[in-house]
Amino acid sequence: MAELPIAPIGRIIKNAGAERVSDDAREALAKALEEKGEIIASEAVKLAKHAGRKTVKSSDVELAVKRL
Amino acid sequence: MAELPIAPIGRIIKNAGAERVSDDAREALAKALEEKGEIIASEAVKLAKHAGRKTVKSSDVELAVKRL
Repeated sequence: MAELPIAPIGRIIKNAGAERVSDDAREALAKALEEKGEIIASEAVKLAKHAGRKTVKSSDVELAVKRL
Repeated sequence: MAELPIAPIGRIIKNAGAERVSDDAREALAKALEEKGEIIASEAVKLAKHAGRKTVKSSDVELAVKRL
């Protein structure tokens, strides 16, 4: 948890057209994206293991994104 | 685009149980999360404007996450 830095998340909200962004809005989006990332990553790890690999590849992540 | 740094994304995949993670897997997850973040942020900006606010708040982000 708490891997994603807050500043780039704030820029994503700014880039979406926000005039101002509260600190807790940045934190809320960071939390949501981190949770989503953990779910995708967990699925990607399972897919890599299923394929008999120790290395998680982009194809694992891409398939996990499609399936979730 | 390309706001999210790659290193924390790699840690999310490692934390999910990956023994090794390829560079392109990190990039694939960063891209997926950034796209998801842009979609949520765009919805949150609309919700803030709808409420007559210039500031995007955590409640906007949380409602956007629920609706998407």
